Amino acid sequence: MKKDQVKDCEDVISSMEFIVENINEVIKLLDREAIICMLQKILGGERVFLMGAGRSGLVAKAFAMRLMHLGFTVYVVGETTTPAVRPQDVVIAISGSGETRSIADLGKIVKDIGSTLITVTSKKESTLGKISDIAMILPSKTKNDHDVGGSLEKSMRGDYKNSPPLGTAFEIISLVFLDSLIAQLITLTGASEAELKSRHTNIE
Amino acid sequence: MKKDQVKDCEDVISSMEFIVENINEVIKLLDREAIICMLQKILGGERVFLMGAGRSGLVAKAFAMRLMHLGFTVYVVGETTTPAVRPQDVVIAISGSGETRSIADLGKIVKDIGSTLITVTSKKESTLGKISDIAMILPSKTKNDHDVGGSLEKSMRGDYKNSPPLGTAFEIISLVFLDSLIAQLITLTGASEAELKSRHTNIE
Amino acid sequence: MKKDQVKDCEDVISSMEFIVENINEVIKLLDREAIICMLQKILGGERVFLMGAGRSGLVAKAFAMRLMHLGFTVYVVGETTTPAVRPQDVVIAISGSGETRSIADLGKIVKDIGSTLITVTSKKESTLGKISDIAMILPSKTKNDHDVGGSLEKSMRGDYKNSPPLGTAFEIISLVFLDSLIAQLITLTGASEAELKSRHTNIE
Amino acid sequence: MKKDQVKDCEDVISSMEFIVENINEVIKLLDREAIICMLQKILGGERVFLMGAGRSGLVAKAFAMRLMHLGFTVYVVGETTTPAVRPQDVVIAISGSGETRSIADLGKIVKDIGSTLITVTSKKESTLGKISDIAMILPSKTKNDHDVGGSLEKSMRGDYKNSPPLGTAFEIISLVFLDSLIAQLITLTGASEAELKSRHTNIE
Repeated sequence: MKKDQVKDCEDVISSMEFIVENINEVIKLLDREAIICMLQKILGGERVFLMGAGRSGLVAKAFAMRLMHLGFTVYVVGETTTPAVRPQDVVIAISGSGETRSIADLGKIVKDIGSTLITVTSKKESTLGKISDIAMILPSKTKNDHDVGGSLEKSMRGDYKNSPPLGTAFEIISLVFLDSLIAQLITLTGASEAELKSRHTNIE
Repeated sequence: MKKDQVKDCEDVISSMEFIVENINEVIKLLDREAIICMLQKILGGERVFLMGAGRSGLVAKAFAMRLMHLGFTVYVVGETTTPAVRPQDVVIAISGSGETRSIADLGKIVKDIGSTLITVTSKKESTLGKISDIAMILPSKTKNDHDVGGSLEKSMRGDYKNSPPLGTAFEIISLVFLDSLIAQLITLTGASEAELKSRHTNIE
Repeated sequence: MKKDQVKDCEDVISSMEFIVENINEVIKLLDREAIICMLQKILGGERVFLMGAGRSGLVAKAFAMRLMHLGFTVYVVGETTTPAVRPQDVVIAISGSGETRSIADLGKIVKDIGSTLITVTSKKESTLGKISDIAMILPSKTKNDHDVGGSLEKSMRGDYKNSPPLGTAFEIISLVFLDSLIAQLITLTGASEAELKSRHTNIE
Repeated sequence: MKKDQVKDCEDVISSMEFIVENINEVIKLLDREAIICMLQKILGGERVFLMGAGRSGLVAKAFAMRLMHLGFTVYVVGETTTPAVRPQDVVIAISGSGETRSIADLGKIVKDIGSTLITVTSKKESTLGKISDIAMILPSKTKNDHDVGGSLEKSMRGDYKNSPPLGTAFEIISLVFLDSLIAQLITLTGASEAELKSRHTNIE
């Protein structure tokens, strides 16, 4: 691939438009009862634990960081000083397919401990969706949904034209959704932005 | 804060709508020449290094993972097996303010080495913006832009109504933009989704 | 616990002496054929992958970093740009008990892929020990070996006097052993310390 | 390098013996007043923060994990949910040379905040050594101490025969020392191994 073959950036623009449409669609399909229930569980738990693999794990960390800014006691599964989960804790799993092996295994352990398990996923009928106290459904393409035989370019001429690959759509919509939960939690807790900023790391 | 005070989730919805509007605005303001130039640098570099602090660092990792799926030799600054940067490498910094201390310091070292430095930021006139070969500008609120004296709730009644706090807007728009760069790189390299999936970790 | 109750630091000294004795014992018990075989597999593999959970995962990262300095293509399982494992790769697992759930599960996947699996462990007859191509045994106390009912202080008056808790002994001995493998690999590859240093990250 | 050229593993053994000698030497040279003072600061601080770059950062994480098992409120600088440092906190930096750029910069910020700064280093007269409340000196070779012009093999015939490369000696001795501090803290706090194990992550 020669770098001087780059002549335009139309796919960048159309992919961004595709993502906007995807968010707009999900807004219409959101189960508001589930959101309220999820907010209640987060506020009612003793501590909050986040987990996810790959890019979903990065979304989990982004949400965990904001919960810390809001004053929650919050941990990311797999980080250095994350303690043992206890029954009164809330564990939030992020998994587009709801089938990510390691996360589903941990989800089962969480339920054995007796903690509350919330899964943010696009698949209600998945392994994680079925064992969770709340399955927060964000309908979107995941990395298992595609005809992996054809080229993406070809598929992009069809239904998935200009869609970003693999689980990208789910990862973006889950970040947008969770950051919007933070907006609601700010209203609910009456936190000021100054308070959030005072908890933001001062040594980075 | 009692959990039974959660009566609705209107802020979740309006925050998601706010984010959509923000992306739509940025689409209009994007400098297409800069995007083409950024794509050329990424394709022309020997290896690609990503860096960022906090949530911007998570966005950097999300982009790095997709570049690996596309077949690029790519590293995240600070991870275990990341080697020394060389002059023919491309280093991409993500920083909303363009002033994050540690990242700006590393940016200066990158320019001393003689490598190409690209900064994704909302501030052209920032420390990082000024020393970069390409400053890819994504106009959005960052964590330093807010009146930190007032409550966020109050500010949300004004210009920033329902906006997510601190640098959230920039972090989301930079993820959306970089994932859309991936869509363009897929077209440019002719990669199929099956090829991407074959590089996706098989032990997670 | 009041800070002015700290009157001496005798346990620091005796614990360090305990660790020295432990290393000396392991030196006598090392299976030299297994070490030679492990060195051959590392040198003969296409790429090297390291994995481990908790503190054993930190030891895995420390070894991976030095292999990178030596010029190996090496990855840590779970980091951002780690690609899919292929049959011609070598995967090294670090697990004191050889039973760490997530690592044992990944070990099985590695064997299904057809890659070479080496486990550094204190238990030959463990799940990981049994499925590995090479089980490199470092005899030492692990976190499952202790009478967890009694206080450590009490146990320290007996056989385990001044021993560091849980899997500490294994973690230290595995770091010492793997860093010593590096010394041998330096001799075998003829690498100079200047070469190693040239690959050491220049942006930290 | 052919894998069938591996004929023995004598360097593994002699490197392990070298490490043992190094630990024995450091035991003799330890400043016991500084250790007692460090224990007092750790016990007297509100929260403990650990920081380090590269392999010293891994040692920092290993110590942080054990402090968490002991019941301390402890964070690793750079991890997701690490909050802002406050004056009543204790920050522990690990740096063999005491000159690691990013860590020295953070050390200065820590002193500006007014927190207690402890540096574990081999160089009393280093940047970090000089600004710290306590410089805990562990005399050992660091990555800047070597004649980087000669081959390591050659140097190993002289004073550094069979020494592991770069900062390895410091990294091992700092892990051994910090794990031995844990043994002392167990005695001081009266913690049982069962208590430690109950805090060990139950979802890994």
